[in-house]
Amino acid sequence: MIVIALSDGPLRFKDIHLTVQGISGKVLTDTLRALERDGIVSRRVYAEIPPRVEYQLTALGETLSTPLGVLRSWAEAHIEEVLEAREAYDLRS
Amino acid sequence: MIVIALSDGPLRFKDIHLTVQGISGKVLTDTLRALERDGIVSRRVYAEIPPRVEYQLTALGETLSTPLGVLRSWAEAHIEEVLEAREAYDLRS
Repeated sequence: MIVIALSDGPLRFKDIHLTVQGISGKVLTDTLRALERDGIVSRRVYAEIPPRVEYQLTALGETLSTPLGVLRSWAEAHIEEVLEAREAYDLRS
Repeated sequence: MIVIALSDGPLRFKDIHLTVQGISGKVLTDTLRALERDGIVSRRVYAEIPPRVEYQLTALGETLSTPLGVLRSWAEAHIEEVLEAREAYDLRS
């Protein structure tokens, strides 16, 4: 979801956090660091007071947003079925 | 990866574990339970001695194997770039 959020352009940490709901600040920090390590995201620090940090998709990251977009479309098309399955599973357990 | 492994047909736990390398038995158990809860995988217990348990994609699960296949193709096409990025990142850190 972070990659999809960044596919519209660079974002600051708090803007990513607002866009990608439901994850903690720590998970977002760790995931951004992993995406940076994988060469998917680049991190840029602007020498301002206070310093401004922006995250952006790299060229490699741009190529990933298409397959993730396909996965996202699947999720949007099938979310109701997944939620129904969860309800039925929880009743059985 | 579990969904892709099951896209060739039902498998037993140990066969999934052999196919999907690098994850622990606990992570596989938890992930299978989550996929079952989401209606992606069904679990079937055969009344044999000892009991045989097989996991299989549901109809909903079958629809997920296509988007995941697209993601897998991306990973296979770009794994070298990701490994190089990790090496460079680790040198900088």
